[in-house]
Amino acid sequence: MPEKVKKLYEGKAKVVYETEEPDKLLLYFKDTTTAFDGVKKAELKGKGSLNNTISSLIFEILHRYGIKTHYIQKLSDNEMLVWKAERFPVEVVVRNFAAGSVVKRLGFKEGQRFKEPLVEFFYKSDELHDPLICESHIELMELAPTETIPLMKETALKVNEILSGFFKEHGITLVDFKLEFGKLPDGSVGIVDEISPDSMRLWDSETGEKLDKDRFRFDLGDLLEGYREILKRIS
Amino acid sequence: MPEKVKKLYEGKAKVVYETEEPDKLLLYFKDTTTAFDGVKKAELKGKGSLNNTISSLIFEILHRYGIKTHYIQKLSDNEMLVWKAERFPVEVVVRNFAAGSVVKRLGFKEGQRFKEPLVEFFYKSDELHDPLICESHIELMELAPTETIPLMKETALKVNEILSGFFKEHGITLVDFKLEFGKLPDGSVGIVDEISPDSMRLWDSETGEKLDKDRFRFDLGDLLEGYREILKRIS
Repeated sequence: MPEKVKKLYEGKAKVVYETEEPDKLLLYFKDTTTAFDGVKKAELKGKGSLNNTISSLIFEILHRYGIKTHYIQKLSDNEMLVWKAERFPVEVVVRNFAAGSVVKRLGFKEGQRFKEPLVEFFYKSDELHDPLICESHIELMELAPTETIPLMKETALKVNEILSGFFKEHGITLVDFKLEFGKLPDGSVGIVDEISPDSMRLWDSETGEKLDKDRFRFDLGDLLEGYREILKRIS
Repeated sequence: MPEKVKKLYEGKAKVVYETEEPDKLLLYFKDTTTAFDGVKKAELKGKGSLNNTISSLIFEILHRYGIKTHYIQKLSDNEMLVWKAERFPVEVVVRNFAAGSVVKRLGFKEGQRFKEPLVEFFYKSDELHDPLICESHIELMELAPTETIPLMKETALKVNEILSGFFKEHGITLVDFKLEFGKLPDGSVGIVDEISPDSMRLWDSETGEKLDKDRFRFDLGDLLEGYREILKRIS
């Protein structure tokens, strides 16, 4: 059983530890929930475990479809073992319906279905508040190797297809989600970070009820109730 | 001599008139100068004429290089005859050096030279304050026909090469500029609007003095003096 050796980094939702093996990391999923660049914050007991469990389940599905990720295994309620990756400071967002920033930014109506999934890139920078960027910016600013840009886009669209279908079977609509990528120890590019209701918008397909982090952002109801409902349906 | 028949539209810097010929328009360049979405505003006698003259001169240069534009001829101090075009609500910006919005948005240092010219697209929308968009948004929102996106980009880069060289010969550095495109009466896609110090950043190559609209935006000196200096050098 891999163990924590040294704390490498503590983020808003996770702590990253080195293990005895130099190319493997241990992620500890915290109960802390934040929104709006950390301005809104709460401790919600059980949230870390829910995100770890949902994220592990999703990574396992993606592996079955041959999608490369940093995921190795779930170690405990709050712990996940992953490959150490050189993370690119880029967020890749896939949107099937308009929600969140795109509504304000481009004037879409919330819930409007896009005729094609929209892939957007954002520059991960707290200081600059994660601004929208295009492929040309990734190249110019060398945020990721140029040849990985189409790969990230294709992978994100493939993940969208897989997860949209998967959630649909369980009565959930995948509205949008965020992926991050990095270079894995074997030199390949794969998905890193987590894929959880913190980084996805998931709506009940029947009622439209929001089951994801928007519950916390906009005080729409008990966050954990939403996350538990997601986990109940998909497991 | 074509004459104004009917006022079609009055913008911040120009008035557009129909002429006797249905596929030709007359642009009247106003002395009004605005900045920051119209929040800062002034009447500067002679500014319309300067912009019309500089813009006409630039369109004539571009025609010599085979670049398609809506320009037909300069009619008088403040009037230009152009082809009527279906304008796309997109601004195409080419940047050789960091200045303006890109500094704040992405954390570049003002004056930093880009290793390659950066092409950015913006959605022309007063309501949304002309947000940055990527090629995927142009397609999704059908802001311009998909096949015209690479054409706009290539044309913008070609114009950048031509104008960078032209201004350099006259001791001026082309920092960045904005183009708009539309479908001309013959069905081809060409540059519309104006190409003037209102839509370009031009710095004295020796001293770095700003000769363009930033003089007005940031109270850096007499606007018309800058525009007159540009015209003097290039004509």
